[in-house]
Amino acid sequence: MRRTSSTRARVSSPIDERFAHLLARYGEIRSATEALCVDLSAEDCALQSMPDASPVKWHLAHTSWFFETFVLEQGLDGYRHFDPSFRFLYNSYYVGIGERHARPERGLISRPALDDVHAYRRHVDKSIARWSRTTNPTERDLETFELGLHHEQQHQELILTDLKHLLSRNPLGPAYAPAPESSGTEPGPLRWIAFPAGVREIGHGADGFSFDNERPRHRVYVNPFQLASRLVTNREYLAFIDDGGYERPRLWLSDGWDARASQQWTAPLYWQRAGGRWRVFTLHGIRELDPDEPVCHVSYYEADAYARWAGARLATEPEWETAAAGLPVAGNLVESKRFHPATGGSGDGLQQMYGDVWEWTNSAYLGYPGYRPAGGAVGEYNGKFMVNQMVLRGGSCATPRSHIRATYRNFFYPWARWQFMGIRLAQDA
Amino acid sequence: MRRTSSTRARVSSPIDERFAHLLARYGEIRSATEALCVDLSAEDCALQSMPDASPVKWHLAHTSWFFETFVLEQGLDGYRHFDPSFRFLYNSYYVGIGERHARPERGLISRPALDDVHAYRRHVDKSIARWSRTTNPTERDLETFELGLHHEQQHQELILTDLKHLLSRNPLGPAYAPAPESSGTEPGPLRWIAFPAGVREIGHGADGFSFDNERPRHRVYVNPFQLASRLVTNREYLAFIDDGGYERPRLWLSDGWDARASQQWTAPLYWQRAGGRWRVFTLHGIRELDPDEPVCHVSYYEADAYARWAGARLATEPEWETAAAGLPVAGNLVESKRFHPATGGSGDGLQQMYGDVWEWTNSAYLGYPGYRPAGGAVGEYNGKFMVNQMVLRGGSCATPRSHIRATYRNFFYPWARWQFMGIRLAQDA
Amino acid sequence: MRRTSSTRARVSSPIDERFAHLLARYGEIRSATEALCVDLSAEDCALQSMPDASPVKWHLAHTSWFFETFVLEQGLDGYRHFDPSFRFLYNSYYVGIGERHARPERGLISRPALDDVHAYRRHVDKSIARWSRTTNPTERDLETFELGLHHEQQHQELILTDLKHLLSRNPLGPAYAPAPESSGTEPGPLRWIAFPAGVREIGHGADGFSFDNERPRHRVYVNPFQLASRLVTNREYLAFIDDGGYERPRLWLSDGWDARASQQWTAPLYWQRAGGRWRVFTLHGIRELDPDEPVCHVSYYEADAYARWAGARLATEPEWETAAAGLPVAGNLVESKRFHPATGGSGDGLQQMYGDVWEWTNSAYLGYPGYRPAGGAVGEYNGKFMVNQMVLRGGSCATPRSHIRATYRNFFYPWARWQFMGIRLAQDA
Amino acid sequence: MRRTSSTRARVSSPIDERFAHLLARYGEIRSATEALCVDLSAEDCALQSMPDASPVKWHLAHTSWFFETFVLEQGLDGYRHFDPSFRFLYNSYYVGIGERHARPERGLISRPALDDVHAYRRHVDKSIARWSRTTNPTERDLETFELGLHHEQQHQELILTDLKHLLSRNPLGPAYAPAPESSGTEPGPLRWIAFPAGVREIGHGADGFSFDNERPRHRVYVNPFQLASRLVTNREYLAFIDDGGYERPRLWLSDGWDARASQQWTAPLYWQRAGGRWRVFTLHGIRELDPDEPVCHVSYYEADAYARWAGARLATEPEWETAAAGLPVAGNLVESKRFHPATGGSGDGLQQMYGDVWEWTNSAYLGYPGYRPAGGAVGEYNGKFMVNQMVLRGGSCATPRSHIRATYRNFFYPWARWQFMGIRLAQDA
Repeated sequence: MRRTSSTRARVSSPIDERFAHLLARYGEIRSATEALCVDLSAEDCALQSMPDASPVKWHLAHTSWFFETFVLEQGLDGYRHFDPSFRFLYNSYYVGIGERHARPERGLISRPALDDVHAYRRHVDKSIARWSRTTNPTERDLETFELGLHHEQQHQELILTDLKHLLSRNPLGPAYAPAPESSGTEPGPLRWIAFPAGVREIGHGADGFSFDNERPRHRVYVNPFQLASRLVTNREYLAFIDDGGYERPRLWLSDGWDARASQQWTAPLYWQRAGGRWRVFTLHGIRELDPDEPVCHVSYYEADAYARWAGARLATEPEWETAAAGLPVAGNLVESKRFHPATGGSGDGLQQMYGDVWEWTNSAYLGYPGYRPAGGAVGEYNGKFMVNQMVLRGGSCATPRSHIRATYRNFFYPWARWQFMGIRLAQDA
Repeated sequence: MRRTSSTRARVSSPIDERFAHLLARYGEIRSATEALCVDLSAEDCALQSMPDASPVKWHLAHTSWFFETFVLEQGLDGYRHFDPSFRFLYNSYYVGIGERHARPERGLISRPALDDVHAYRRHVDKSIARWSRTTNPTERDLETFELGLHHEQQHQELILTDLKHLLSRNPLGPAYAPAPESSGTEPGPLRWIAFPAGVREIGHGADGFSFDNERPRHRVYVNPFQLASRLVTNREYLAFIDDGGYERPRLWLSDGWDARASQQWTAPLYWQRAGGRWRVFTLHGIRELDPDEPVCHVSYYEADAYARWAGARLATEPEWETAAAGLPVAGNLVESKRFHPATGGSGDGLQQMYGDVWEWTNSAYLGYPGYRPAGGAVGEYNGKFMVNQMVLRGGSCATPRSHIRATYRNFFYPWARWQFMGIRLAQDA
Repeated sequence: MRRTSSTRARVSSPIDERFAHLLARYGEIRSATEALCVDLSAEDCALQSMPDASPVKWHLAHTSWFFETFVLEQGLDGYRHFDPSFRFLYNSYYVGIGERHARPERGLISRPALDDVHAYRRHVDKSIARWSRTTNPTERDLETFELGLHHEQQHQELILTDLKHLLSRNPLGPAYAPAPESSGTEPGPLRWIAFPAGVREIGHGADGFSFDNERPRHRVYVNPFQLASRLVTNREYLAFIDDGGYERPRLWLSDGWDARASQQWTAPLYWQRAGGRWRVFTLHGIRELDPDEPVCHVSYYEADAYARWAGARLATEPEWETAAAGLPVAGNLVESKRFHPATGGSGDGLQQMYGDVWEWTNSAYLGYPGYRPAGGAVGEYNGKFMVNQMVLRGGSCATPRSHIRATYRNFFYPWARWQFMGIRLAQDA
Repeated sequence: MRRTSSTRARVSSPIDERFAHLLARYGEIRSATEALCVDLSAEDCALQSMPDASPVKWHLAHTSWFFETFVLEQGLDGYRHFDPSFRFLYNSYYVGIGERHARPERGLISRPALDDVHAYRRHVDKSIARWSRTTNPTERDLETFELGLHHEQQHQELILTDLKHLLSRNPLGPAYAPAPESSGTEPGPLRWIAFPAGVREIGHGADGFSFDNERPRHRVYVNPFQLASRLVTNREYLAFIDDGGYERPRLWLSDGWDARASQQWTAPLYWQRAGGRWRVFTLHGIRELDPDEPVCHVSYYEADAYARWAGARLATEPEWETAAAGLPVAGNLVESKRFHPATGGSGDGLQQMYGDVWEWTNSAYLGYPGYRPAGGAVGEYNGKFMVNQMVLRGGSCATPRSHIRATYRNFFYPWARWQFMGIRLAQDA
């Protein structure tokens, strides 16, 4: 059932205020996406460097497809598609919507051109504006619209990580952005912060946006534990490498040891050894490795092996979340425009919980007790990936500040390395 | 430090009694292994049908290797190896012991012959007898010895499942054993048994044998849930198939959907459709599918999809274990010599919790809070597999009765199907 | 030793005249390459659709690299590279020159941009002009320079065939160029032209350019044979399909039958069946299949199977070459700007020997008796590919007229289909 | 139409004499096959070490299947199959006969047991005897029967080479047979034997048995050439290795260089380097490399690279055959029971042309002018493999003397190494 209201004279209501707020956010987020790409050529945006990564152009289109498919098709009377073939071309994995273009082939599309995709974005933006003036949104409408905003923010992060992977495959080592001037503060000594045992609640409660996989808020029993005050640094990780970390099978999970061998890992992704020195590819090009930075671009297998070598372990989801519960969302997030983890972590209490690098947890990505995926095709958003992946927490230097929170559950296969992924240690009390 | 006691005059002590008990068990378990193979030819025992499965001959040798390596090498003065090359040839995955023969190449070994492997078993048996007369065992010695017993029981199950896979690849469909005469009882209607919420303890406590992965006993918070009174039957699973279960992506996890496609799954392993009827390969050869038997040889992906289709889910480990906690270990286990799941499940309360089929849980195989692997090379037994696998509970028709218990955690990759694996449903209260 | 002649006062000599001619050709051929790309976007030119195909941008650069490496580096004093990294980036397979960028990764290069590659071409053109004014070329210099011209013409053909493959992978089916207006003439009935037995000479003699693989001219004994007067048409090939050609193993070479199965071939490349009609992707987009056109984009395996079905065979190299020896080089070559095979073949004598489609022969690509590869790194041009490939003759609708001749030996793996490849039948007399 | 003659009173005729001769040969050849296997266990005979190789048991059965399918089914009234399932199980690749068991799965068959296969052989032998007493064979019948004899001889060679591969994969390095006592004679210096140009005839003429691929005898023009007087030795090949032969791409065909890399070749198959010395696995177990023996177990790629390094090339088929035309069939063939190439090659004229190792030629395996495959399913014997393979000539130490001749064309993929394959050099005159 489509709702129309060609002439409206609404009084301000909570739902109106929230709608107005979301519409403002829409403008900001859509602009932020494009701002990330402003210095990229059409060629930069068209290429795909591996099946897991998508071309930037695809991200620009798919985020628009999301609003078109879940908001405009349902909610805007007489909506005219910019191009009917995009329904197929820019569907990521929603089988409820229909057939879609194969993911590994996203890099075979030279047409539509980047300019056409920008025109598509304009078309969707104008249509959203028209929809906003004519709709009388229900709570569910607002939820879907808000989901689109957070969805686009997720793709902002992927634009940066996928592009980084692409540029890294270019032997010329090109830069996305100039390097920042300041380099952060000294990392202090690693301290252990203790937390007591007990029944706790985790997961997202009633108010504010969350993805369905953060719900419902539920009880867990947490055994006593300690969390490291800061992230593991490159200097610490180098000690692991120099101690034969990549050659000692007893430090590794069996699957990790095999992945290491078949992928020929001897260091984190983007590290290069030349002339006895470690260099690292970053979004600012290739430069010397800074030993004080948080180690980044490690797989779960490497994070786990490092933790075992260090006599510790990774935190579980409930541990991380209960520890983070009261902390402000602040840190080296995408707004810092560093696009790289920063040195730091020397203050009191837990440091670097948000930003810099996603922190691998020792928890498999599964549904919470009582988990129910959202209805309709958006129900495919999270639930169908709940196997074989591990949860990461806390966001990274590519995550928008308004996108992250204590209950946020990111998830990747344990061999993934191309996101900004790092390590925080934990141990039993 | 080796302990010797050429002349002994011991008074009976608890440790002596336990040792005497374990030695008696040793004889029984070693004989039981060989009894499983008594009708098999050398050819039956030499072949390997896939990298995940091993030749029967390898199992016969490897279980002996375990006692040789972890008991005799350490504990028997002047122990002479039957053949020094076996140290390499029959090591499964213990990197702490040294290099080993590649698993996928176990089927390339025509020599040593089966007769030589039987002679190896005799050599180890005699050496264990000699060791038993000369050792003054510590608690740790008994633990390792007992681990060897349970290890051999695990391989008894694998002998049956690996052999079943091999025979299934033979287009002639040969039988391992004649079919049993009786076919069990009618499965009754599926009922839901409710369990309340609360803090519970799971895992193995102080007394009796357990694997390290069952420890430590620890607290968990369990939300209210219900468990199906019996296993899912072939009849019920056929309704899922007939309802398009294998063609509806919305019922599947994404990885499961892809596995289904790449493996071309349209039914459980060993099912064959011909002339509009379903037939099934069993250890008794090929026969008609019995709709009342528990469904078997399904992957986690299929179990999960079936549960979703049925409007339910799989149980978690804490749910299964707290439900099973008070039940006697009884059911269609290997001692029934059926070598196949039996019809049944009609009584009051929870039925078929032990035996018939391993029950896939919705829990990833991870270490419990406070988990510590055993010391030395036996520490590789369980811990290094704690990623990418799902836990199964309850044992199967190929499991020895003395091997299974409520806290027992079996684990396989979610795509595995060649074990006797089935489905019990759960749901939120 | 570099030769310099800052002040020159040369009298006209045969070598001078030839040099002047080649310099004129240089200008024409370089322009022709760019004319092929004039309507392509930077995105069109950057993508790579399979390891066998290269991005158009790569072709534009590599052909310039060839002149830079083999002419300018050796012959122009003080030559300054446009970008030293291009020596690595645009080397195709000349190990004598040094390391090179991996072929399957040519599609990962967004920078240098297409504009930069065009600037590179200008730089090389200017340097060639400077070289032409300052060099006093030896015979060997002219040979290498001329080789560069023919090399660039080969890549003109690859630009069209690689781009065609890329555009075909785009579900939108975009066109490279508008379709031609006229459609050619009717194909007449297939007639057999007889040739007598005897000792013949094939291969390239002394005068004029040839690749090293066409030399030396040598004697062969040719048994009596007959050649079809024209190419096999789509109509004829459809009869093969309709007669179960792709389902009858006895018609196929064993390797071909396996390739057919693993590649799921049921028709030539670029054919699509929808609604009971065959459509075909062309450089003009997707359109109805014209039954009168020569069949195109078939592998050697398909050509061989078709010939067997038709009760005939493919010609050998000596047969094709002795038959073609006296014919003028004329036909539907790239200058017709059709970019697709044309209907025709109805006249007297052998028709369609040049142009339209490369004709698979039944000869493996091997060195002629007395074959010697050229000296230096250009010796890698042809010789190292002399195994596992089959020879094709006669050029195609993508071949420049000045590039093809009776002795020309093209070669591809028997499974290749993305070139304009077709079928002419032969039979024993 | 079956022919029967329950009562016969035949006068002796040429066809009768030939039949009698063939029946005697049948007995000898069948016994020779079994003699090769007499010391092998059922386990030795059941295993398959790679898709290209088959279990010995399979060879024993398949050679019987050939007589059953092509002789007994057609020619013996009331023939009763030993087991109807064998028609499927032991068909190698004859699609004209029907479906067949997949080649890579021949090692999954523990039942029928080796004893059953021997009983199958007895059944076929008795049936052939019965057929011989009741048939009135046509010329075509005798041809097919004789083809079965040569077919079985081919599999005698494969029994040895496939078994060698299997035993080589066993880390214990078991022996098939004890080593011979004498080691042959010294290889003399390599001399060049010159042959003049001219029109020659090659291929098999009218009399005596040949495979269809040796026919028809036809004219070729042979350019002047020289052939090495003997095979290349291990000493000579070691000089190639020590000169960096496996690390210099300019010596290799491009496909060969890639195969070398992906297969990690650094020496011939079965060579092992330990402690600065080369050892080699043979059918007598592992021993020191004898530098005077002919080099063996090299691919075409290695043979070609060696020849290029040595400033020579491999011979073509016409060259080899015209050179061999007048020579007696003598050498280190299977009857010597060495099962390994022998040192030698020091006499006058061409040495070692027969036996020791198959000699790679520079000719692709294609049909001769006028080639016609035999009719019926046996027409699949040779013709369908005429692509992608290279021809080898002269037989090896595993070839029966009565099986080889000057016109014999063996063929393998250029990467194959597990046959007894070696190198003879040639050069232009």
